[in-house]
Amino acid sequence: MSAASAGEAGNSGKDPGSGEDRMIARLFEPLARHPGALGLKDDAAFLDLPPGHQLVLTKDALVAGVHFFSDDPPASIARKAMRVNLSDLAAKGAAPLGVLLAIAIPPDMSATALEDFARGLGEDAERYGAPLLGGDTVRTPGPFTVSITALGSVPTGEMVRRTSAPPGAAIVVTGTIGDAALGLQLRLDPGRPGFAALDGAQRAFLTERYLHPRPRLVLAASLRAHALAAMDVSDGLIGDLAKLLAASHIAGELDAARVPLSDAARAAIAAEPALLETALTGGDDYELLAVMAEAHLDAFHARATAAGIGATVIGRTSAGEGLVVRDERGAPLAFARSSFSHF
Amino acid sequence: MSAASAGEAGNSGKDPGSGEDRMIARLFEPLARHPGALGLKDDAAFLDLPPGHQLVLTKDALVAGVHFFSDDPPASIARKAMRVNLSDLAAKGAAPLGVLLAIAIPPDMSATALEDFARGLGEDAERYGAPLLGGDTVRTPGPFTVSITALGSVPTGEMVRRTSAPPGAAIVVTGTIGDAALGLQLRLDPGRPGFAALDGAQRAFLTERYLHPRPRLVLAASLRAHALAAMDVSDGLIGDLAKLLAASHIAGELDAARVPLSDAARAAIAAEPALLETALTGGDDYELLAVMAEAHLDAFHARATAAGIGATVIGRTSAGEGLVVRDERGAPLAFARSSFSHF
Repeated sequence: MSAASAGEAGNSGKDPGSGEDRMIARLFEPLARHPGALGLKDDAAFLDLPPGHQLVLTKDALVAGVHFFSDDPPASIARKAMRVNLSDLAAKGAAPLGVLLAIAIPPDMSATALEDFARGLGEDAERYGAPLLGGDTVRTPGPFTVSITALGSVPTGEMVRRTSAPPGAAIVVTGTIGDAALGLQLRLDPGRPGFAALDGAQRAFLTERYLHPRPRLVLAASLRAHALAAMDVSDGLIGDLAKLLAASHIAGELDAARVPLSDAARAAIAAEPALLETALTGGDDYELLAVMAEAHLDAFHARATAAGIGATVIGRTSAGEGLVVRDERGAPLAFARSSFSHF
Repeated sequence: MSAASAGEAGNSGKDPGSGEDRMIARLFEPLARHPGALGLKDDAAFLDLPPGHQLVLTKDALVAGVHFFSDDPPASIARKAMRVNLSDLAAKGAAPLGVLLAIAIPPDMSATALEDFARGLGEDAERYGAPLLGGDTVRTPGPFTVSITALGSVPTGEMVRRTSAPPGAAIVVTGTIGDAALGLQLRLDPGRPGFAALDGAQRAFLTERYLHPRPRLVLAASLRAHALAAMDVSDGLIGDLAKLLAASHIAGELDAARVPLSDAARAAIAAEPALLETALTGGDDYELLAVMAEAHLDAFHARATAAGIGATVIGRTSAGEGLVVRDERGAPLAFARSSFSHF
């Protein structure tokens, strides 16, 4: 990891020895305890892959004001950046090996904020076994920007694909859906009737679910064992399921009444039924969406339940194309163009 | 690779089906010809590592107005982003396996500019055998920002380190030094006497060297065979050599008169001697800086010459600490604080 200062469009480290850049280096070096990270003091890191395994690679970038609020706690921004990437690994059945981090720091970002960011990153690196291997720190006149590359491994040939879902199988989702999207709405528009119906604990739950995705890495091996296809739910359940079906060239039906909802989401939707659409299309869930043969449902369900996450059958795939979403009476549900019908 | 649109701080793909984002996806999908890239249509890529090899990982980010000029040709920005990363692989003796790309796109970036960027990226992916494996495309209200993670491989245990240089060895650099820094100065201040002395071809050469680094991947295997320690010269020869010596806990002397200069750099410095400091401290060279035992110099030199790059002994390491730079009469040279003396 090299620290660089802003300036003319010259090299990436005109003044790598400035006090501030040394401070930044000092924040991240303690996180680089993996031997291959070389204390972030070399040009590159090295990494061994377990024998008989393949690498799984994903890279997501987050921009202040686009993917998170500028005034989110910096540690929470770090956690979100780590977890959206680790969620992709989980959905592919992979175990984390490590991460590389690039951050572009705006001039008004304080040393305290950077310390808090590094702390959040380090805690998640420990929590998920995804050590910091290297990266880059640069200056930007723009918003705080975070890019993480996550590396994981799977036994060779066993990465769970998005494109391999067959017709005639069950559609399963882990955890509960819509909490994060409702948490975002609660933050943007707390006066909505659906949120007025919630108690403080319920509001805190939704807010927390938006701020801190929970990558389902604990289910990665079980997903490899049982799923025929999977992805994580990042852009909304309905849109993401439509993507998975399209990628696999099959059709599917989703029973909206079976979509697992938290108590808080259920209460908000009961008070304001329009929030159902927010929950089903809003995104940021970071739950696993999988297609499984019937014979595997019990084993996956048992494992997900034992992990305290849960798993629910929400629909079924079929030959053809397109996704139909049905309400509790079996009538097709339509959603606003921006989130669903463009698929 | 997922395409995402700007908006509130919600999920990363509120409107992944917009015409513009589909256009962006179409630009990058043709570059993802590696089977593990899965056409950029899955959550992650997979990659096999050759048996008996380790991964080498590096990640550099570039910001418009900081690391390149906003009006640089977009294909050149892509090339620079690719090549500064590939240069790190070369300096570690690694062969490229592929890259992941994240770009943050400002609202005023045209479709034509993005096409040009994708074209430059694709050409370099072919040229250097570093296929696009995946990544992310996001919106930013800030400057165009590019982050690349490059993956390479070395035979296990053979990555060339920065920290392993012994005393009593030769200091070697490939190619010529200072061209890019002079090319940057020429762009910023074309009226300087040193540049007035150049002909059009010499100016074009320096400009090109600034715009388009040339990663010395062709010498990576030879570096593994012959170098005891190495890094690439990105932040200026003198500063980077001082870093290498400090990381290896040794001292060194650099003979400024032996630093290899191109005809253009030599002519500019002859007309304006102050430009020597620019050349030696300015950076963006992306040449290889290595420490070698005497017995290996001929073989490395022969290989570098055969590759049309060349290699030159510029100094010697010794026990102790610190770097002394001497002029042609053996007198110590001092440089401005911002580029050298902070080490």
